[in-house]
Amino acid sequence: MNFKHGGDITEFAKDIRCKKDEIIDLSSNINFIKPKIDIDLNNLDILSYPNYNNLKKAIAKNYNININQLELFNGASTAIYSLFREFELTECSLYAPLYLEYKKSAILNGYNIQYINRFDNIYQEIKENSLVVFVNPSTPDGEFYNIYPLLKKWIDKNATILIDESFLDFTYFQSAIKYINSYNKLYIIKSMTKFYGSAGIRIGAIISNNQNIEDIHGKEPLWKISEFDSAYIQSALKDSEFNQKSIIVNQKNRDRVIEILRRSRYIEKVYPSSANYVLIKLKDIKSQEFQKRLIPYKIMIRECYNFDFLDSSFVRIAIKDDLVIDKLMEALCESFI
Amino acid sequence: MNFKHGGDITEFAKDIRCKKDEIIDLSSNINFIKPKIDIDLNNLDILSYPNYNNLKKAIAKNYNININQLELFNGASTAIYSLFREFELTECSLYAPLYLEYKKSAILNGYNIQYINRFDNIYQEIKENSLVVFVNPSTPDGEFYNIYPLLKKWIDKNATILIDESFLDFTYFQSAIKYINSYNKLYIIKSMTKFYGSAGIRIGAIISNNQNIEDIHGKEPLWKISEFDSAYIQSALKDSEFNQKSIIVNQKNRDRVIEILRRSRYIEKVYPSSANYVLIKLKDIKSQEFQKRLIPYKIMIRECYNFDFLDSSFVRIAIKDDLVIDKLMEALCESFI
Repeated sequence: MNFKHGGDITEFAKDIRCKKDEIIDLSSNINFIKPKIDIDLNNLDILSYPNYNNLKKAIAKNYNININQLELFNGASTAIYSLFREFELTECSLYAPLYLEYKKSAILNGYNIQYINRFDNIYQEIKENSLVVFVNPSTPDGEFYNIYPLLKKWIDKNATILIDESFLDFTYFQSAIKYINSYNKLYIIKSMTKFYGSAGIRIGAIISNNQNIEDIHGKEPLWKISEFDSAYIQSALKDSEFNQKSIIVNQKNRDRVIEILRRSRYIEKVYPSSANYVLIKLKDIKSQEFQKRLIPYKIMIRECYNFDFLDSSFVRIAIKDDLVIDKLMEALCESFI
Repeated sequence: MNFKHGGDITEFAKDIRCKKDEIIDLSSNINFIKPKIDIDLNNLDILSYPNYNNLKKAIAKNYNININQLELFNGASTAIYSLFREFELTECSLYAPLYLEYKKSAILNGYNIQYINRFDNIYQEIKENSLVVFVNPSTPDGEFYNIYPLLKKWIDKNATILIDESFLDFTYFQSAIKYINSYNKLYIIKSMTKFYGSAGIRIGAIISNNQNIEDIHGKEPLWKISEFDSAYIQSALKDSEFNQKSIIVNQKNRDRVIEILRRSRYIEKVYPSSANYVLIKLKDIKSQEFQKRLIPYKIMIRECYNFDFLDSSFVRIAIKDDLVIDKLMEALCESFI
């Protein structure tokens, strides 16, 4: 099984023999807009044991929930692993393609996995009492789905529902958080690192009803989040212009990237996206070759052959600033004639 | 069950109505000596996904092992929880008193727990195939035990052995790491936060043979450690004078604290310690009252009534700098006459 992930620029830099900071990383879908950080991390008190109350309050306020509806983890992947372990279920329906840590967790915990192809057959039947995983907006394409008809279907099957909304902050769409008190087996998962431009920071959240959160909390270690990360995210959440700016600029730059990609004769299709990345289907070229031709420009993209239902004709490209988009355009013009 | 932990100075400050930074925290056993940090955390690259190779190399070098004998976690408590979950065992022998997260983990994972009183009966028989947990130097007293005769005994019983050496760096004693290739069910656990003066940083390690580490690694999420924490510890490990200085100064200050404590008529016994804290047995006063009398001095100590085999006549006091020790002496002279 290949669980290779985008974003390992250290290895990529080594492979192509250049410095890490020379790489143009279009492989990891991290917000290129950075929040204003008004704290001095060099002088943070890290001597004491952390107390997560203030961090929890800030995140709860941001998502308009109360702190008893929230459990924090050192990143969304840790949250995923915890949930998969704790649910005592045997069937799991993964709406694929999706973030690979879900598949890995499901395999590790011995679930029978049903892969549902979102592109072809999204209303495929699921088994009773399944664990359902849906990423919205999806990865690696970024499409936002109207979750309501799916929710109804899943609830009819008494499913345990896990919706990953790590990229929802890039959109104006409504969150499924509003349903957590209407259905008692609904969990929303949030990675704080994508939107807040900080893959190096490990904070993720599970949002559910009070009782579910109390059950999860009781099984968790006392401390798990770095005080640096906690301070960074609290400061980021105070930047009142960051959300709007991130949505608007990412959307504008995404439109530009799509326009550029559509001009290339090697690109068959650009998938609709509401997030800070786009999925493209290549023609007359494989993703390995596509990546290879971008190496002179030190551009790293995300090949998608290890996603279910995708193959080596798919590539994901992250949205970055105008200079980077210029560089991508230059590369596409010169190397793909 | 009361799993209350020392070190929540935020709550303590609120209780006694003062600012957090006014508290003299003698409750948490964090090294008061700080390593030299020569990086600028405000300008750290946190945009990219972390790659833990350099951190692993630095920690492996520090403990004189290879990187395949090491798995990192976001703190020792997370490491403990992972191990207790993964071991498919039913019996657990805890050498108590000990760090409460072990008990909590054992209960959560449904182990039958045997509590062995280290003070009274350390050679008590254990059941075949048990999981054995031993903290060395111990908490909350800090005694270092010669592990060899115990190891032999445990191996005779085919035990899975977990030795917590989070405080060993404060001593010149040898680590049990040297036995990991002699017995295939031996695990050493290390919290990096105690010795490196940083409870706010979440890095812990499990050290075992290559095969065990490979098995553990396969069940772990891709990312779990903050890039800030990783950079901090890498920088700390470069401070070549830090280890010696920490050992020498903590030992000197511990001797001074012990001398002061022994003068008090409320103290029956100070337990032998090789770590940066001491356990005391009070006389004619309960720990709650002892703590209460220290409040005018804003001194927080660790009451030990929730440790197995201890009660409200026990208190743990952390070793800090001379000014703090002066303050403790003043408090003991004035409030305990």
